[in-house]
Amino acid sequence: MIRVAVAGYAGRMGSAVVDAVTTADDMEVVCGIDPHGTESAGTFPVFASVAEALDAVDADVLVDFTQPSVVAGNLAMALPAGVDCVVGTTGLSNETLAQLAADAAPGTCLFYAPNFTTGAVLMMEFAKAAAPYFPEAEVIEFHHCNKKDAPSGTAVRTAQLIAEARSPRVSEAPGRETEMPGAEGARGALVDGVPVHAVRSMGYVASQEVIFGSLGQTLTIRHDSWDRNSYMPGVLLGIRSVGEREGLIVGLESFMG
Amino acid sequence: MIRVAVAGYAGRMGSAVVDAVTTADDMEVVCGIDPHGTESAGTFPVFASVAEALDAVDADVLVDFTQPSVVAGNLAMALPAGVDCVVGTTGLSNETLAQLAADAAPGTCLFYAPNFTTGAVLMMEFAKAAAPYFPEAEVIEFHHCNKKDAPSGTAVRTAQLIAEARSPRVSEAPGRETEMPGAEGARGALVDGVPVHAVRSMGYVASQEVIFGSLGQTLTIRHDSWDRNSYMPGVLLGIRSVGEREGLIVGLESFMG
Amino acid sequence: MIRVAVAGYAGRMGSAVVDAVTTADDMEVVCGIDPHGTESAGTFPVFASVAEALDAVDADVLVDFTQPSVVAGNLAMALPAGVDCVVGTTGLSNETLAQLAADAAPGTCLFYAPNFTTGAVLMMEFAKAAAPYFPEAEVIEFHHCNKKDAPSGTAVRTAQLIAEARSPRVSEAPGRETEMPGAEGARGALVDGVPVHAVRSMGYVASQEVIFGSLGQTLTIRHDSWDRNSYMPGVLLGIRSVGEREGLIVGLESFMG
Amino acid sequence: MIRVAVAGYAGRMGSAVVDAVTTADDMEVVCGIDPHGTESAGTFPVFASVAEALDAVDADVLVDFTQPSVVAGNLAMALPAGVDCVVGTTGLSNETLAQLAADAAPGTCLFYAPNFTTGAVLMMEFAKAAAPYFPEAEVIEFHHCNKKDAPSGTAVRTAQLIAEARSPRVSEAPGRETEMPGAEGARGALVDGVPVHAVRSMGYVASQEVIFGSLGQTLTIRHDSWDRNSYMPGVLLGIRSVGEREGLIVGLESFMG
Repeated sequence: MIRVAVAGYAGRMGSAVVDAVTTADDMEVVCGIDPHGTESAGTFPVFASVAEALDAVDADVLVDFTQPSVVAGNLAMALPAGVDCVVGTTGLSNETLAQLAADAAPGTCLFYAPNFTTGAVLMMEFAKAAAPYFPEAEVIEFHHCNKKDAPSGTAVRTAQLIAEARSPRVSEAPGRETEMPGAEGARGALVDGVPVHAVRSMGYVASQEVIFGSLGQTLTIRHDSWDRNSYMPGVLLGIRSVGEREGLIVGLESFMG
Repeated sequence: MIRVAVAGYAGRMGSAVVDAVTTADDMEVVCGIDPHGTESAGTFPVFASVAEALDAVDADVLVDFTQPSVVAGNLAMALPAGVDCVVGTTGLSNETLAQLAADAAPGTCLFYAPNFTTGAVLMMEFAKAAAPYFPEAEVIEFHHCNKKDAPSGTAVRTAQLIAEARSPRVSEAPGRETEMPGAEGARGALVDGVPVHAVRSMGYVASQEVIFGSLGQTLTIRHDSWDRNSYMPGVLLGIRSVGEREGLIVGLESFMG
Repeated sequence: MIRVAVAGYAGRMGSAVVDAVTTADDMEVVCGIDPHGTESAGTFPVFASVAEALDAVDADVLVDFTQPSVVAGNLAMALPAGVDCVVGTTGLSNETLAQLAADAAPGTCLFYAPNFTTGAVLMMEFAKAAAPYFPEAEVIEFHHCNKKDAPSGTAVRTAQLIAEARSPRVSEAPGRETEMPGAEGARGALVDGVPVHAVRSMGYVASQEVIFGSLGQTLTIRHDSWDRNSYMPGVLLGIRSVGEREGLIVGLESFMG
Repeated sequence: MIRVAVAGYAGRMGSAVVDAVTTADDMEVVCGIDPHGTESAGTFPVFASVAEALDAVDADVLVDFTQPSVVAGNLAMALPAGVDCVVGTTGLSNETLAQLAADAAPGTCLFYAPNFTTGAVLMMEFAKAAAPYFPEAEVIEFHHCNKKDAPSGTAVRTAQLIAEARSPRVSEAPGRETEMPGAEGARGALVDGVPVHAVRSMGYVASQEVIFGSLGQTLTIRHDSWDRNSYMPGVLLGIRSVGEREGLIVGLESFMG
């Protein structure tokens, strides 16, 4: 039984983590951490800080979905104490992550992932693997109207991975120069030479399609998600994987295949 | 049995028409027409002009997939003689078509269609019908790398049909202003307010997707084609339909539903 | 301003109706009806029965998303009083609906729809319209694992509509006889001659794809939904449409295009 | 410059190989082999047997797309002579392949692949890689009406690969027991526990979709092909890869990533 402490247990992501850990057979929530209140949620004790929590309970893993302002302090308490950390909170620089990992007790792992959705991570891994075999590649992402920037960070990252992995041979796909007058943008945004198209509609949550083509064939990899619960299998995978690893590990793909 | 004369019978489209008419149970090729040679193809006589053909054989319908320079002359012979015409040759103005139809014998039909692919025509009809019920609509077209302009004429026409049919209520989808620096074009080309995206790959022939969205739902209409034979059901539909119609008719949708 | 009374206003669907009507510019909720309690929700009065409601407030339309056991009684009060009814509650036979409509005051409309999702209704209408032009048609539906029957009612209904609308010409698609030993079911369920396939996954809410094919082309119509809010545009369309209609009307398609 | 001999050079696949090799910058056709005639195709000599060919020209690689009755003899000549072989001809047992490879000169490679389409091979590799992370997986294959069996060999193989790779945890997807009376087959064919659905239409050549699902997310991998040229990048990859390998190698995936 993996003993899990959940920092930010009462937040949107934290409470989903609590539910997922509670439901899993091989792990349990041993405490929640919340500086704003230590009222117990009923099934586990709650502490105001990681320090207090580690004094009181025995935890194997700290899961942190909190705020940029508090995550570094949490990790600085847990890692030297030999508690593996699974972190989804963004905002830490690579340097800070490396420094925190360097201060960890031997055998302790700091795992950070910008994206815990297994399917999205696999989509990017597959795009990287397919890129050398197809001259043409384009990315289409589909998001809800409330998304304020285009294209999405995942689409940009996917295009960059494709650009790094593909053969230097130039694709034969025509570009912006073929756009008809008044139809600028038809060929999308070029991200490192890969066209990226962004579709917006109230009918989507978050989807992405990567299309590879060569003569007479098309390979399409698509990911659709519409629920933050889609993060949870990745969080559980992180919790199960850190026990056997050490040092700083970045990206869920490190634990996949 | 509908008696069909085929102008341009030896060309790429014409020979496909000959095959399709020959295969159909309810029609037959009674002659081919080709100014460059009158050698018989074996199963039907060939004439150098429509005039000669109509003198020699009895035809119900003339199918014309020829050249802009000859089509008007062909129709000017056939229509006054009471022969219905099914025309896929482009280049005739609306005025010329109307004049040719005006000179037709009573009960004779001049049918012209810019696109004979049943699925593409239905895609546009359905897009028009769906537009009033969805705030968001975008068009993605997929073509082979050898296509020299973007977006395709069908995509532009589809966007225009959507713009005409949709409610004046402004879509909530964010536009070009949300494109990140260096990612101009991500939100596509705006055609009458409808974003249109063009994907190019050696892996496609001609495909198009129209995506409609409202809260929590998406309706997608997609057409794929990779063979000029996909024109033939539309040509046969035209041949079967002109007998019961009169005057100028434009667009395959006139005979569909 | 259309004045709307909402029976079952506190239920799952009813409260979504209240939200949608409140948000719309051209209508308002004038009362809720709930036999289990008449505590006001704050912005409108609540009555224990339709009779009491109609005594107290002036309503143009009654929306009923209640139970099979109460809907008939509600309609029997509202229709003779000249209140148009928009009904999503299932369980009323065609005979009962016809009888209720016959007792309505002149100029009053009883509108019942088994499905208020605009996209799903259009998918079926488009399938019906496309069927005559394609020899092959198949239906694939995708639902969450908790769906207890296969195929879905919408898929069966879609297949029946296709079967009624298509030409009697037999499709050339091979059937169950081509299934390899041990792979029975590969060609799906035959519903009136149309193959229907059901996919189940925790990754879906409710999606369906209708695929039409002829030589060298494919026309695909797909609907995805993952939120009961996708019903609401259809309910508002019903509310806006009943005022100009009379008698029994069944199916949202009656008000679309 | 890789020197390539093409057995069956005049056949459907062989002539496509000749075109592809000729077009590539880093290889050339040094001879064709055809027992039925040795008339030169103009740009390279033709021999009646592999033995005669190897006597006359210096070849690095023999590509064999011939018949089950002749392939073993061809390989038995080429491999002991130190010529690497790239084989797409089916019908050789694993035992025969192993024996032929055992008789090869040192440093010589016998490469056999049942499928040379890069995209189809990647689809299967990706399905294998994704399987451990998703409780639900289903396969849908789409082929032309002239396909005489269902499901396709590729679909069956994909399902087997998923079954081997996935966790033993039972999927929550309901099965055949949820099929409604008269709708047997809706849930597809079960291949090692993975539902497989086969769609048939004149509108397809060969496509396949693998759908993985977990709570709130779907990962879809799709491959479409409509031209035998889609085999050629895989054949060229084989020709380029055998020089650095030795012994029997089966499957294009051996050379991919």
